[in-house]
Amino acid sequence: MNRPEKAETGTEPKHPSKSAGATALDLPAVPLDAAIQAYFAKCEEKLGFVPNVLAAYAFDLDKLKAFIAMADNLMLAPSGLSKLERELIAVTVSCANHCHYCLIAHGAAVRKYSNDAKLADTIVANYRAADIDARTRAMLDFAWKMTVEPWGIEDADRARLRAAGFKDRDIWDIAAVAGFFNMSNRVANATDMHPNEEYYSMGR
Amino acid sequence: MNRPEKAETGTEPKHPSKSAGATALDLPAVPLDAAIQAYFAKCEEKLGFVPNVLAAYAFDLDKLKAFIAMADNLMLAPSGLSKLERELIAVTVSCANHCHYCLIAHGAAVRKYSNDAKLADTIVANYRAADIDARTRAMLDFAWKMTVEPWGIEDADRARLRAAGFKDRDIWDIAAVAGFFNMSNRVANATDMHPNEEYYSMGR
Amino acid sequence: MNRPEKAETGTEPKHPSKSAGATALDLPAVPLDAAIQAYFAKCEEKLGFVPNVLAAYAFDLDKLKAFIAMADNLMLAPSGLSKLERELIAVTVSCANHCHYCLIAHGAAVRKYSNDAKLADTIVANYRAADIDARTRAMLDFAWKMTVEPWGIEDADRARLRAAGFKDRDIWDIAAVAGFFNMSNRVANATDMHPNEEYYSMGR
Amino acid sequence: MNRPEKAETGTEPKHPSKSAGATALDLPAVPLDAAIQAYFAKCEEKLGFVPNVLAAYAFDLDKLKAFIAMADNLMLAPSGLSKLERELIAVTVSCANHCHYCLIAHGAAVRKYSNDAKLADTIVANYRAADIDARTRAMLDFAWKMTVEPWGIEDADRARLRAAGFKDRDIWDIAAVAGFFNMSNRVANATDMHPNEEYYSMGR
Amino acid sequence: MNRPEKAETGTEPKHPSKSAGATALDLPAVPLDAAIQAYFAKCEEKLGFVPNVLAAYAFDLDKLKAFIAMADNLMLAPSGLSKLERELIAVTVSCANHCHYCLIAHGAAVRKYSNDAKLADTIVANYRAADIDARTRAMLDFAWKMTVEPWGIEDADRARLRAAGFKDRDIWDIAAVAGFFNMSNRVANATDMHPNEEYYSMGR
Amino acid sequence: MNRPEKAETGTEPKHPSKSAGATALDLPAVPLDAAIQAYFAKCEEKLGFVPNVLAAYAFDLDKLKAFIAMADNLMLAPSGLSKLERELIAVTVSCANHCHYCLIAHGAAVRKYSNDAKLADTIVANYRAADIDARTRAMLDFAWKMTVEPWGIEDADRARLRAAGFKDRDIWDIAAVAGFFNMSNRVANATDMHPNEEYYSMGR
Repeated sequence: MNRPEKAETGTEPKHPSKSAGATALDLPAVPLDAAIQAYFAKCEEKLGFVPNVLAAYAFDLDKLKAFIAMADNLMLAPSGLSKLERELIAVTVSCANHCHYCLIAHGAAVRKYSNDAKLADTIVANYRAADIDARTRAMLDFAWKMTVEPWGIEDADRARLRAAGFKDRDIWDIAAVAGFFNMSNRVANATDMHPNEEYYSMGR
Repeated sequence: MNRPEKAETGTEPKHPSKSAGATALDLPAVPLDAAIQAYFAKCEEKLGFVPNVLAAYAFDLDKLKAFIAMADNLMLAPSGLSKLERELIAVTVSCANHCHYCLIAHGAAVRKYSNDAKLADTIVANYRAADIDARTRAMLDFAWKMTVEPWGIEDADRARLRAAGFKDRDIWDIAAVAGFFNMSNRVANATDMHPNEEYYSMGR
Repeated sequence: MNRPEKAETGTEPKHPSKSAGATALDLPAVPLDAAIQAYFAKCEEKLGFVPNVLAAYAFDLDKLKAFIAMADNLMLAPSGLSKLERELIAVTVSCANHCHYCLIAHGAAVRKYSNDAKLADTIVANYRAADIDARTRAMLDFAWKMTVEPWGIEDADRARLRAAGFKDRDIWDIAAVAGFFNMSNRVANATDMHPNEEYYSMGR
Repeated sequence: MNRPEKAETGTEPKHPSKSAGATALDLPAVPLDAAIQAYFAKCEEKLGFVPNVLAAYAFDLDKLKAFIAMADNLMLAPSGLSKLERELIAVTVSCANHCHYCLIAHGAAVRKYSNDAKLADTIVANYRAADIDARTRAMLDFAWKMTVEPWGIEDADRARLRAAGFKDRDIWDIAAVAGFFNMSNRVANATDMHPNEEYYSMGR
Repeated sequence: MNRPEKAETGTEPKHPSKSAGATALDLPAVPLDAAIQAYFAKCEEKLGFVPNVLAAYAFDLDKLKAFIAMADNLMLAPSGLSKLERELIAVTVSCANHCHYCLIAHGAAVRKYSNDAKLADTIVANYRAADIDARTRAMLDFAWKMTVEPWGIEDADRARLRAAGFKDRDIWDIAAVAGFFNMSNRVANATDMHPNEEYYSMGR
Repeated sequence: MNRPEKAETGTEPKHPSKSAGATALDLPAVPLDAAIQAYFAKCEEKLGFVPNVLAAYAFDLDKLKAFIAMADNLMLAPSGLSKLERELIAVTVSCANHCHYCLIAHGAAVRKYSNDAKLADTIVANYRAADIDARTRAMLDFAWKMTVEPWGIEDADRARLRAAGFKDRDIWDIAAVAGFFNMSNRVANATDMHPNEEYYSMGR
């Protein structure tokens, strides 16, 4: 709400400090090194913009790089879960936590991978209403329980995933993605992080 | 509870596969590269053992390295929060989530940094009963709310931190550490991760 | 999920029984009388379709008429609350209750009245992240508390609304709209009511 | 608590403005038309008084009529559920929501239809302790879950109702009545609506 | 619900085994000693019956005596709280816990001490709707919070009681009574304890 | 936190008033009678100190005696539950309620009876992670549900205990111990009761 005013620093070169209102915290962006410049350039090329979550972390390059490494490994590296499945977990967790940033940004990602805005909007609302198969439902039930009652997960919950066809490695990936968004949701909510405007209409 | 049986693979060389019962998932450890071997050697030297959370991740070195990078940055890098303060957040979040692994491992860390087992055990039980100053109390109130009602964090919550003397950069660090343990707690609970035996008595 | 199969009954005449898969219940539509035919024709004209919630009620015209009378009075009759404000309440309540039908249908209504898809999607996610004034925030805080802790509403809550500029008549309307969606959300969830396809993209 | 003082407006003619302290809101009653005068007269004849919920709505005849139409349809129209069963749902929902008005007024209705004050007082306290058959128990379990966790209702919940002997039309009626009291409870709590004195002892 | 069948053992001598269906557990009553016989005789004389909670404990005289000693001290011994105030706490706690036995039995006690069935029924429903003074309201707010969020009680909560006029000794008594019913409610719910028939109408 | 300052009253004779800072309430200890002097002497002999919960009650000998009688009967009298099992229930309930006093004091008791600090610390964190048999798990599941959702206990819950080998008398004892700590936890939290220093290291 009450975001710190940022002096407009001109136009050149393009720099995430332009996104510096990404959170309610006043954290000045640091100069980017070559690796991050390249990474941000790839974001611009592929997405058309640098996601605000990255701009938010850009006050400290070590933190930014650690975040990128973990996020990209979880969401993009080879896995028994498709990229779409991982985004469905992201959105389901973010629904339980009512996280504005992640529902907007990862809702867009579900649209991108599924080409199905109806599916995306349904998962944002309540995954139980979505037209998904039993495997996906079991996966999202697990992610929901991890989010709202993590202390209660027990052997029976893992057994349900195995019965739905998931291998132990897949269970790790479900747990890791669901865990990650329980982190990101909270960092976003705690800092009042706001998604880029582009996300709202992307893939619609 | 029902952990996969592991064939004892002999004794040489020392390898985290010996900790492979660290979770309820059957995930075979991969060969370690030099960087991780060195990291684990440092763990052995400093702690006397490799933490099971690292053994648990050792089925995939990329995931392991991403986890280490983020965890070490959050808990050990320079910050307006002392290392003890960061561990107090870790334990407070883990208390709210009833996370066995993290309460044991980070309870030990609080003992190490504070040299005060009473403080550690009190934070494990309920931080509100601890003999802490108003700044620390405000920090832990924020971490607790982030954990149990993340959607409800608002400007007034951040204002309370600022009034307690925290700068915006500190608020980020509080949020990031509290967020991180909301991830780790859930990965630990979801996989039934068990702490190393050594943690229970360390620093007592 | 498991919806009753409906025999396709041909094409003529146009009838909500074609929407009869609107819920998971097998409730055959009854013949429409002139008043409802006219009402549905107006829906077709204005919206392009008959909302599934009406199709769902069309197994009993008395129930349908009572629902229409109450819904239209609440959402369309003169009030100290604008139509947009009433839709913001609808979506906020539906967010707390994770109601798929109402988030989709009334999210569309927020887009229609505000011409602001970003606002609509933000309220769907978490109204606290929206760029709204203090009056609107107070109104939605009240609606949220009514939804999640109705037993705890007290004089102080009403006083906050009055301090934000609402008259007693407005407070009634806030309470009535928030109450109504606590009903509709539950009927929709209990019957697995699904929104019309058209809602997803309407106003985007 | 702090109810607006009303000037006593004399005695003739009998008018619900005499109940105008029914809520904490200051909403002057409007003149009644013939239909409502007749309806209120019937209340006086049958109950001995006009229920305060009707008096509360009597600041706007359209709202009052819409409420009466829906309430009477739900509670009195032909249904696979007996009138007593519908009142049991009303009280069970009101117990979960701790709604003073509805527990008093519909507790009285349970006494009226069952002639069993013990049953009524038990449902007010906790329906699980009541001496009810398996069908009734299944119905109230569904109403309770709709109230406290509406997002979690799924096919299995509807299947339990069908197994207990309910037809799909009955399931609608259970959902509609439980939904309605989730509305009424909240309007009553939000406005601090107070039941008529007569309800407390009626049917004892 | 499924209560153990008890053989009717005739009529002489009067013995709580006649109440042995007081819970869902099959616990045979033991012979009463003189002290308990005298105590039960006083119950019969004053109340007209032996409360089922005492019959339920009568399988073990030591447990019965310990319960009586604590209950009578809390509810009857000299205190800064009137007997009525203590019963109001009992009912408020039992409302939060939805305890059938205690709402019926202590609802009757509120009627007895207050001679006000309306007050009793209101506290059973939701103490916030009762016509009580600020001191009583503060007392019941504290008892409610102790019941639903005991870990969150802090200095500010005790300060509110002191500001409402309670001395530290009174605060102990509020805490002790509220604590006691959090025990009794749970023993009653866990054993499906049922109140004596007489309680339902007593004092009406 | 803000504890009343106590004047140091010298050294002779030993008296619980020396523990008078046991709670946040200012309640002066009364002179002890012979029975309590003997009881406290036995505490000193066996434990090395008088537990602060007893010191806290020592402002009123009747209350103190009633508490001792009930606590000792529950925790020490013959039962189908071992003393260790009763302490496991105590700690499990105290974990759910985040009760500092009881987690410290009864965590120590679990260490004493089990000679297993790892078991004790695990139950403090989350009993589901402990290496316990199915009978113990069923017992603690029941105690947990009694604590967090007492209104929902039903025949099926008792049936699970019977299936795990518990007799009805054992079920009573489980309920009574779990109930008792729901009382003690709340009295301790409400008064900010602090455990004796000795408990923290006892049995380690």
